[in-house]
Order: sequence, then C-alpha cells, then structure tokens
Amino acid sequence: MKLKTETTILAADLAGTFVFAIEGSLTAIHGGLDLLGVMVVAFVTALGGGVIRDLLIGASPPNAIRDWRYPMLAFVAGLLTFIFHTSIQAIPASLLIVLDAAGLSLFAMAGVEKAVLFGIRPFVAMLMGTVTGVGGGVIRDILLARVPLILLTDIYATAAFAGSFVALTCRRYGLSPAASAITGGLVCFVLRLVAVSQGWHLPKAVS
Amino acid sequence: MKLKTETTILAADLAGTFVFAIEGSLTAIHGGLDLLGVMVVAFVTALGGGVIRDLLIGASPPNAIRDWRYPMLAFVAGLLTFIFHTSIQAIPASLLIVLDAAGLSLFAMAGVEKAVLFGIRPFVAMLMGTVTGVGGGVIRDILLARVPLILLTDIYATAAFAGSFVALTCRRYGLSPAASAITGGLVCFVLRLVAVSQGWHLPKAVS
Amino acid sequence: MKLKTETTILAADLAGTFVFAIEGSLTAIHGGLDLLGVMVVAFVTALGGGVIRDLLIGASPPNAIRDWRYPMLAFVAGLLTFIFHTSIQAIPASLLIVLDAAGLSLFAMAGVEKAVLFGIRPFVAMLMGTVTGVGGGVIRDILLARVPLILLTDIYATAAFAGSFVALTCRRYGLSPAASAITGGLVCFVLRLVAVSQGWHLPKAVS
Repeated sequence: MKLKTETTILAADLAGTFVFAIEGSLTAIHGGLDLLGVMVVAFVTALGGGVIRDLLIGASPPNAIRDWRYPMLAFVAGLLTFIFHTSIQAIPASLLIVLDAAGLSLFAMAGVEKAVLFGIRPFVAMLMGTVTGVGGGVIRDILLARVPLILLTDIYATAAFAGSFVALTCRRYGLSPAASAITGGLVCFVLRLVAVSQGWHLPKAVS
Repeated sequence: MKLKTETTILAADLAGTFVFAIEGSLTAIHGGLDLLGVMVVAFVTALGGGVIRDLLIGASPPNAIRDWRYPMLAFVAGLLTFIFHTSIQAIPASLLIVLDAAGLSLFAMAGVEKAVLFGIRPFVAMLMGTVTGVGGGVIRDILLARVPLILLTDIYATAAFAGSFVALTCRRYGLSPAASAITGGLVCFVLRLVAVSQGWHLPKAVS
Repeated sequence: MKLKTETTILAADLAGTFVFAIEGSLTAIHGGLDLLGVMVVAFVTALGGGVIRDLLIGASPPNAIRDWRYPMLAFVAGLLTFIFHTSIQAIPASLLIVLDAAGLSLFAMAGVEKAVLFGIRPFVAMLMGTVTGVGGGVIRDILLARVPLILLTDIYATAAFAGSFVALTCRRYGLSPAASAITGGLVCFVLRLVAVSQGWHLPKAVS
C-alpha cells in the first residue's frame, strides 16, 4: 500500500510540475525576463510549493533536489515555453484556467498524501496540501516583487484547502488513499472552476 | 529542568503567537486582503519567525507543523480579528505597541531557549532569538511587497538582540533558565518601549 | 581526501562571505537603511545562498548557524563597511565587479563540492552550486522589495552554472576535487568578466 501511495504521489507531482512550469514561464516571459529568468521562475513556480512542504514536514532533502526528474522536467517545460511561447500564448485563457485548476488539485493531493505518510496530523496535513498547491505561485510573485495573487483575490487556496479536507475525511472513513485523493482532487478542481465561472469571492472585512 | 524549560518555551510561544497573529491580521485587513489573505498573514506573522528558527537549528519538523495548536491558535486569532476588527482597531495604538513589545520579548526568549536546547553556541543563539522575534514580521512585509519595516527604522530587532544577549549572559553566570528568560525579556520589553517613546533610532551611514 | 575537500570548502566559503557581505552592505547603505539594516543585509547577502543550499541538501543545521565564524565574519564586514563606506565607495566599480566575480566563483565551487559530499547527483549538484552563488543576492533583492537583478539581466547565474558544470565534468574524468574546483571556478570567473566587458546578454523571448 505504501508503495502504491508513493507512485500516486509521484505521478500527481510530475504532472502538476509540468503544468505549473509552463504557467510560470508564461508569466516570466510576459514580465520581460531573459532565458535564465524564465527557467528560474519555471523552476520555483513548479517546485516551490513541494520544496516548502518537504522542508516543513522534515522530508530532507526535498524531492525536487533528491530526484533529478523534477528540476529537469521544470527546465524542459521552461525551455519549450520559451521557444514556442507564441503558440502557447494562443491557447485560450479558459483552457489555461482548467489546466491550472488541474495542477492545483494534483499538487494539493500529493501534498496531503505525503504529509500523512510523514505522520503529520490531519489539520496540519490540510495546510500542507494547500501549501503544496499554492506555494510555488507565492514564491513566483515574491520574485516578481508583487503581492501574491492568492492573497488578494479569488477562491484558489480555499479550493486546495477544501479538497485536502475532503481527501482526509474520505481516508478517515475508510476509503483507500487513491480513492480519497481522487475525490478530494475533484472537489478542489470543480470548486476552483465554479468559483472562476461564477465570480465567487471570499468576503473582505467591512470597514 | 529540561522539561521545565520546554514548558517555558511553550507558554511564551503560544502567548506570542496570539498577539502577533492579531497584529498580522490587522495589517492584512488594512491592506485590503480577503478572509483567506488575513488568515495567511496571521499565520506567517505569528509563526514565521519560529519556523525559520526551527529550520535553521535543525528542529525538524518545526513546532508550528508538529503541534497543531500553533496554527490553530493563529487562525482563531485571525478569524476573531476579521470579525471584530472594528472593535480591535479602536484599541489605542499605544496599547498595541505595548502588546507587540511583549510578543517580541516572549518570542525572543523562546528562540534563545530553544537554540540553547539544540546545542547552538551563544553568539548564534542570540541571532536565533532575534530571528524568532522579527522573522514573522519580515515575511509579512515580503508578502505585502514592501521593504521590511525593521530594516528601515527603529530599535526593534536591536531590542530582541539585546534581550537575547542579557538572557544568555544571565545563564552563563548561573541564573536558572526561567530567571534568565525573565530578565532578558524585561530588557527587550523596556528597551523597545523606551526607544519608541523617546524616538530613538540607530545611526545611518553619513554620505 | 574528505578532510582536504572540507578545508577547500571552508576557505572558499569564508573568502566569498567577506566579499559578498561588503557588497551587501554597500547596497544597504545606498538604500538608506540604518546600522541594523546594513548588518542584516550583509548577513543575508553573504550567507543566504549557503543557507538555502544547506537546507535543500539536508545539511542541518546550516554551516552559517553551526559555525559562528560565518555570521561573525559577515557582521564584521558589515560594520567595517558601515564605518568606512566613504572610502569603500571610492573603490572603482571595475574592481568591485572583479571581486564580485571572485566571490561568485568561490561560492559556486563551495556549493558544488558540498552537494557532492552529501551524495547529491550531478545535475542537481550544478543547481546547488548556482544557488550558493546567487541565492544571497536574490534574498537581498527580495528584502529590498525589488525583482532580483539576476532574473532581469546579464550572465551571472549562467556563469555560476557553467563553472559548476565544468567542475563536475573535471571530477568525472578523474581530476582531484581541488583541481576540478580551480578549473570550474576559473571558467565561472572569466565567463562573468568577459560577459560584463562585452555586454553579453541572454536572449529574451521574441513577442
């Protein structure tokens, strides 16, 4: 069972890495960065969340360092985006939002699974799922010297948190890790897309 | 004795966490963030310094991850501030400054104690006390895309450093950990408040 | 041999620390920070890259924490720069660029050596060399709330990466660690200086 869980984490992590690296590269190209800047931003967007999670739960060295496939995949995605960015930018925004929601769900589920594997308790495991999903985007925004998007608006981290909550609840009631991750991931994915299409927002403090 | 030290660290840490989480939330509300943003900023302001300290001294996973009471306390403080922020903002600024100085002292002392417990040498232990005290505020300012306040002005980190120095000196001359922490914490607290009321500043390089 | 490698790392690290701390201090003084701000920026510019590397490869606690000579050296450099900054600013820019290129090469080689010592595989070890060289400057720029210089321009991280690649290739073909580090460091140093003098840049995506 443990092996199977690890395979699930690996597959979800690699797929999410590729999607997020492309997104990060597009942001970096849009911001006028050079080839190196694009590669760096691809790397941190794709792997930053997982690295923060691994440092926090004590999985040292982080996967992104121990396993060369992660950084290599991020760099390949960065390079491909750099070369073919005109074609990639022609991709409709709605498709990008769907891919991004998929990446978010994959990362959140990989984060929850790994935290549980390392004996982290449920409430904090949900936070780790969320951090895995949104951490890379936060570091990207810090590098670009702007307030992280997820702090300002939208149901994004909230979707990751809700999906993580569902996945852990499913596990508690006896579903297999894989079935729990699929259920939680779907909740995150659907919640994110519905929030975008309906223009849902979290409340702000009335002043 | 070791157990007693750990209890001291825990109490100081939890009290400081609550105060700093409220402060972080107020800053976030003032910056126009939504509910999630307020929770995130509450979390990082309250726990960021301790997480950096724990990662640096090799206490892995950090307390804020291993012990669910820390993040839960930060989130509760964030939620309360979000709901009652009008009342909280009516608190006079001078009281907030006193509470903040108390939080700074508590965190600095918790940081020194823990660094010593992990066998860190005195000079670096002072730095760890300072980092525990000011780290959360620095991450908060980075997230809000501004130069950290402590770099620009005021005797703030300096107070934490001075208090840490005093606490370690007291330990060296045979005072108990608790008595040393109280003495060092008082020095930090008083120095911070006197600096604010007298408008003390550190020198800048003449150009 | 292991001992000798460690001595090489130590010497390269300490020399690079001093150079980078002076540079960080000058930037901080130029940015109007007070004495504490100058010390903090000196510290992070000099030690930030190594701390990130050590956290990532699982060398916990990082050298900069375990060995008090690192932070002390950074602070001494910061204090000296603060006091004598008028004289230091009279140093011609070209000399500073040469010293900086030397610091970059020393750090990159120390980073590669240490990563290899910790069993990190070659591709990631090159990344660790690069991170050690440029990480401090990135944190400095984040603290000063601006987009890290290395993302925007110039062959800087690229030189560190190229030098790391050469050093690892030399090791693979049987050169001693010291000879490999000297060769790789020279490549980094010369490539950086030629890039500055010739105005070489990395390509940007055509839009």
